[in-house]
Amino acid sequence: MKNICILGGGSWGTALAIVLAKKGFNIDLWVRDNNQCEEINTARENLKYLQGVLLPNNINATNDIIKAVKDKKVIVSAVPTHGVREVLRSIKNHLNQEAIIVNVAKGIEVDTLLRISEIVKEEIPEIEYAILSGPSHAEEVARDIPTTLVAASAKKHIAEYIQDIFMTPKFRVYTNPDVIGVELGGALKNIIALGAGISDGLGYGDNTKAALMNRGFVEIARIGEAMGANKMTFAGLSGIGDLIVTCTSMHSRNRRAGILIGQGYTLEEATKSIGMVVEGIKTTKAAYQLSGKYDVTMPITEEIYKVLYEDANVKNSVVNLMLRDKTHEIEDIVNEDQFLW
Amino acid sequence: MKNICILGGGSWGTALAIVLAKKGFNIDLWVRDNNQCEEINTARENLKYLQGVLLPNNINATNDIIKAVKDKKVIVSAVPTHGVREVLRSIKNHLNQEAIIVNVAKGIEVDTLLRISEIVKEEIPEIEYAILSGPSHAEEVARDIPTTLVAASAKKHIAEYIQDIFMTPKFRVYTNPDVIGVELGGALKNIIALGAGISDGLGYGDNTKAALMNRGFVEIARIGEAMGANKMTFAGLSGIGDLIVTCTSMHSRNRRAGILIGQGYTLEEATKSIGMVVEGIKTTKAAYQLSGKYDVTMPITEEIYKVLYEDANVKNSVVNLMLRDKTHEIEDIVNEDQFLW
Repeated sequence: MKNICILGGGSWGTALAIVLAKKGFNIDLWVRDNNQCEEINTARENLKYLQGVLLPNNINATNDIIKAVKDKKVIVSAVPTHGVREVLRSIKNHLNQEAIIVNVAKGIEVDTLLRISEIVKEEIPEIEYAILSGPSHAEEVARDIPTTLVAASAKKHIAEYIQDIFMTPKFRVYTNPDVIGVELGGALKNIIALGAGISDGLGYGDNTKAALMNRGFVEIARIGEAMGANKMTFAGLSGIGDLIVTCTSMHSRNRRAGILIGQGYTLEEATKSIGMVVEGIKTTKAAYQLSGKYDVTMPITEEIYKVLYEDANVKNSVVNLMLRDKTHEIEDIVNEDQFLW
Repeated sequence: MKNICILGGGSWGTALAIVLAKKGFNIDLWVRDNNQCEEINTARENLKYLQGVLLPNNINATNDIIKAVKDKKVIVSAVPTHGVREVLRSIKNHLNQEAIIVNVAKGIEVDTLLRISEIVKEEIPEIEYAILSGPSHAEEVARDIPTTLVAASAKKHIAEYIQDIFMTPKFRVYTNPDVIGVELGGALKNIIALGAGISDGLGYGDNTKAALMNRGFVEIARIGEAMGANKMTFAGLSGIGDLIVTCTSMHSRNRRAGILIGQGYTLEEATKSIGMVVEGIKTTKAAYQLSGKYDVTMPITEEIYKVLYEDANVKNSVVNLMLRDKTHEIEDIVNEDQFLW
């Protein structure tokens, strides 16, 4: 049986360890904190991030990252975006020749504006890379709730290999060649989830939130296409699919942070209350910079940026969005000349 | 000030009457039932379908449909799909030369498999036509919750005229030339809402529902494209936008009916409990026939059809969907040869 390692003992890394362990793989789960590591091995439960779910015995937590990656063909990186580069540097000289990095984090590196595949390319240029993404709250995956995802890689045999590794009757994996689109969809949807939360926190309705999600999707597809993605990827599981689950579920930290902000709490109070990484806050800044760099209009991202970083009034932001000029839908996608007059 | 009539005193017709009346238009609201009609005029409230919302005085309910349409330029048809043809026949000889029919119902005619614009074309060939659609629960629109919609017409000046008539700071209207896509998106999403309800009724999670919504959207886009729609329209407000609100809101009758079916109630018990038209039930049958006619695979529609009309076991249906062959995402949209190998 192949051995697999998972880097990162947060809720998602742990849930994926459970999926793979139940399939019979032996899993080394790298957890940075030694206390948490020992707790996982003795309590057979990740009390901090995934309470109430028993961990199979073939999951072994370790805080020795070199030992964890040694001789592994599949290395799942479940480290938050801001920690990926450092982790890659620490493992790069200890990898198996055939190793594949499977990234499952969703973000864009602040300052460099790089996607995670680009960070991997900079740090370990020759390694094979795939991303696994989709509407998949860890709390539900760990409890065997039917879930679907996408494995994206530029190489078909890599995408299909990862599909085979993860697929179960409750965990359905599709393949997609569009790494850029899958990475951007997963990262940028967190911005819209913050907005959806803000709308809920302000007491607006389902109509308002659906509008925000749909128009948010349009602006994500627009910047994505400018950055080289296939715009149809954003219509898939890792795009609108993930956007839906993140904007409508109480499992979403980004949405919960948004609700608090909509209710009038400060950004600091909101993030403190969530207690885990809220990727969307940093991603909003990165996306705001990307919209300038690629000269793409992103009205929702811009309003959320102003709320988070310039202390703009949240109610005014909604008014700004509703009062924009009258326009054609998906103006740059549905062509004007399709009207027959 | 232009006078406008609205045909149909259900929740959506009434909510649109309120939007337009608040803009200053005088509204004749045709209500078939004379008691309901008198109640609306005296109580200034639609007690049956939109309780708790005051109707402005410039809404006048009438049960005389000929009087209602006389000299009106804008005739909003808020009649359910199965009643549209009969209503058109009763008004066709009494219309203003310049009249525009604005359809706001979402369905496909059983047996003929026609969209509403096609029914209109058969009954009143020369009349101008637009459809207004999007994520817009009546209960929220009537209460001034920010909402966005699409006005679609083959003619740009008609779409823009309807956009101008309806647009307010809380009711944002986009235009779109793709009548086929907007009609199909609104109709077919009700099937997926039934499925989302069934998933919720079975106790599945947010991941499962997001998967169903996303893959449902993919099959809607697939049949839509085969029928002549622009597939990008399904990525807009009247497609995935409306799908989102219908699948996640408790205002949705289709979703509520699905929840009951998922909990084990029969189709008859479920529809009786809702007490209003559940368009998705008939639409499922029509879409099932369309998928045969156009030779397009619609796995979710097929499973829901079997549950509704062939008494299939709901749990098995979910298993069937999860266990389909491994596949590429949006297999007919993202091209195989985009893999670099």
